[in-house]
Amino acid sequence: MKIHQYQILEDLLAEQIVEGRLNAGDRLPSVRVLCERHDLAKGTVLHALSRLEARGLVAARPRSGYYVTERGAPVSATPRPAAPVNARVSPLLMDLMQNGAAFDLVPGAGGENTQGLELLNRSINRVMRRQRGQSHLYYDDPSGSVILREQLAMRYLRRGCKLTYEDFIVTSGCQNALFLALMATCKAGDVVAVESPGFYGALQLLEQLQLKVIEIPSSPLTGMSVDALQQAAEKWPVKACIVSPCYSTPAGAVMPDPARKQFLQLAEQQDFAVIEDDIYADTALSYTPDPLKKLDQSGRVILCSSFSKSLSRDLRIGWISGGRWQQALLQLKLVTQLASPLSVQNGLAEFISNGDYDSHLKRQQKCLRQQSEHLLNHVRDWTAVTNVEVPEGGLTLWIELEPDQDTSALFSKLKNEGVFIAPGALFSTKNKFSNYLRLSFAHPWNDHRQKALSVIGKLLS
Amino acid sequence: MKIHQYQILEDLLAEQIVEGRLNAGDRLPSVRVLCERHDLAKGTVLHALSRLEARGLVAARPRSGYYVTERGAPVSATPRPAAPVNARVSPLLMDLMQNGAAFDLVPGAGGENTQGLELLNRSINRVMRRQRGQSHLYYDDPSGSVILREQLAMRYLRRGCKLTYEDFIVTSGCQNALFLALMATCKAGDVVAVESPGFYGALQLLEQLQLKVIEIPSSPLTGMSVDALQQAAEKWPVKACIVSPCYSTPAGAVMPDPARKQFLQLAEQQDFAVIEDDIYADTALSYTPDPLKKLDQSGRVILCSSFSKSLSRDLRIGWISGGRWQQALLQLKLVTQLASPLSVQNGLAEFISNGDYDSHLKRQQKCLRQQSEHLLNHVRDWTAVTNVEVPEGGLTLWIELEPDQDTSALFSKLKNEGVFIAPGALFSTKNKFSNYLRLSFAHPWNDHRQKALSVIGKLLS
Repeated sequence: MKIHQYQILEDLLAEQIVEGRLNAGDRLPSVRVLCERHDLAKGTVLHALSRLEARGLVAARPRSGYYVTERGAPVSATPRPAAPVNARVSPLLMDLMQNGAAFDLVPGAGGENTQGLELLNRSINRVMRRQRGQSHLYYDDPSGSVILREQLAMRYLRRGCKLTYEDFIVTSGCQNALFLALMATCKAGDVVAVESPGFYGALQLLEQLQLKVIEIPSSPLTGMSVDALQQAAEKWPVKACIVSPCYSTPAGAVMPDPARKQFLQLAEQQDFAVIEDDIYADTALSYTPDPLKKLDQSGRVILCSSFSKSLSRDLRIGWISGGRWQQALLQLKLVTQLASPLSVQNGLAEFISNGDYDSHLKRQQKCLRQQSEHLLNHVRDWTAVTNVEVPEGGLTLWIELEPDQDTSALFSKLKNEGVFIAPGALFSTKNKFSNYLRLSFAHPWNDHRQKALSVIGKLLS
Repeated sequence: MKIHQYQILEDLLAEQIVEGRLNAGDRLPSVRVLCERHDLAKGTVLHALSRLEARGLVAARPRSGYYVTERGAPVSATPRPAAPVNARVSPLLMDLMQNGAAFDLVPGAGGENTQGLELLNRSINRVMRRQRGQSHLYYDDPSGSVILREQLAMRYLRRGCKLTYEDFIVTSGCQNALFLALMATCKAGDVVAVESPGFYGALQLLEQLQLKVIEIPSSPLTGMSVDALQQAAEKWPVKACIVSPCYSTPAGAVMPDPARKQFLQLAEQQDFAVIEDDIYADTALSYTPDPLKKLDQSGRVILCSSFSKSLSRDLRIGWISGGRWQQALLQLKLVTQLASPLSVQNGLAEFISNGDYDSHLKRQQKCLRQQSEHLLNHVRDWTAVTNVEVPEGGLTLWIELEPDQDTSALFSKLKNEGVFIAPGALFSTKNKFSNYLRLSFAHPWNDHRQKALSVIGKLLS
């Protein structure tokens, strides 16, 4: 059966309406914008719109455009997930990553609070001096440094998790932990549920491992919709679900306690693995929620995290606590990279046990609070912005623009000026969120960054 | 069809004879040893032996045992490879790895030449100080540090390879590079040819990735038999071949130039990927052979290596030069771990460009030469030893014992005394090389290690 081009557009817009991302009364993007964005002829776009009108989902208003009708807007509050598809990632992402700026407005830095980093480097150097010649002829235990894992266990104990050092394996960052978790729980063709919008790195992994993705609508405030996940899991064989209950990217949502319980009950009933991405926990601006892992009774939750967001992206030290998959994960870690660098791990352990890490987080919290407020003040002045939630953690703002805006096009324009943003298209495998962008407040607002912000503001007005 | 137990033993012994690993006149292991080693009843072993006798491969000598006949020994010089099988690795390996001693006699160290390491640490520390706050908020380019890759390119230029920094991707060690290479070239069920005996880490990878392995006989002097590889590739769909032409483990073989050319011609004819493990190049005791990659005309050779054997196992810095698979490899690196630690890479680059790495290698060469001679002198005194080749690189001796010896049993006995060896069974997925062991001369012979050596000698006499 041949699928006509108008049908693809019709389905896409219908989905946005039915899922509640376009509300009753919202104006659709103009015909011109739809033509450009989807590379379609005007006649094709008009045909799709007239079909939506015939279905009663939209209504044309003369000289103004097409609007979502009351009937089109969802009756139920539960957004419906779409069927699983082969994961495919926007080619923009590689472009963005290779510019080393996936988390930033502009490459280059200055003005950062580096006190913590200097203390960390001193700890690592001390360990290097102390162990000179003691470790260069050995590979570390594939699980990683015992003293670092003890520190990790103690930190999770403070967040209600009864874990010991034996429950942790050190990894090359959180992305590496997510990779190991998917390798241990899924095989090619399996269905994995993810947040939508959600972390592009997870989508990349699914694509690489030939997994099918099912995108579960996620709210900027409360995270993944457990009702939508339930609908999906009852209909399709969900093998694993990647969820970030604590300041998920891009919007910094925190999953409320009742939803967490409901989520784990569902995982039990439907027997899927829970891959918890906890990487933003230590970016909390006020309080740090406990991890989902705390409520895990059956070893079903695989906890993944790293120091990349809270301390340094250059350490490449993360961890995984794999519950019932722990042995398989250890085997995978061993086979794919043998071991982790011991001197860096032990330096980190010393840095944490000294109290230097906690002091660093306290200083950082203050900076991040100021930096987020500064960004918010700017963004609110941009006329194209229709909504932005104020997050309590997570390093970024998730900014909704008018439906006509296309942030992938904006990305290309800004790139020419040396400014990098994360366009909404990165956060889904479908052509969603094209009128959203994610901006980081991880860096201090030096002149260079300030100017980048002005450039974006100008292009958006 | 039911396979009888005697058949498995019969096939195994027949293969050893036909492949030339048991020569005319060699005595087979005793009936008692065969019973114990294969967990078989005496009647089953005797039945297998009588069938081999009927085939004319062995002959019984009264009160002495079974001997390989002239007829049984191979007429052709080409050992025949066995059919591909699902890769399975000895569970001993995990035991060995978790004791952090895969390369050593005893855990713990002392007396090592650490001058190079101290200079390296200083370089890393300098870079850390210099870039304080410059990199902790960024992920490195997924390809890795440009200045380190430039140094790598220059080193390979000295070995005849015209590569630039753009041809390299930095990885988490050589094991990680091999993993990426297999992910980029094979999918589950594909057939991969490896050296036999060969690197256990490669076998682990094949098992993990559900690949089929075909073991190609490898000689302690000249490495993989290209004739045997040709037989295999003509009969089975070999997708990739992992080869270590430069001081392969366990025996330190170097593939001669004519064999290299023949090998690459075969790869071209049969269209398989060549994964070159070059990790032992810088352990050369006298001269460093050029890599196979030098002769690669069609981007078919994926070069993998790291600093783990020549400088420090704790750096976890390796590299890959992927030829026609470079883009896929970069994507895989990005997806599975985002980036590598920049400060360590740049510290290494400085260490190399200063000339400190070459000085380190020169000092190390001297030590390794002495250490290998010391080990050789000991090993030659052990009565159970029937053969040991003197390698010109590679950090280990591959020691052949009398056929009755079972080094897996020896491993367990030694483990109780805190001494670790690498038993022959690790170097094949079949029950081969059970009367071989690999011993390392990577460490200086301090008292602790000297004592470990005596314990082995006593158990072997």
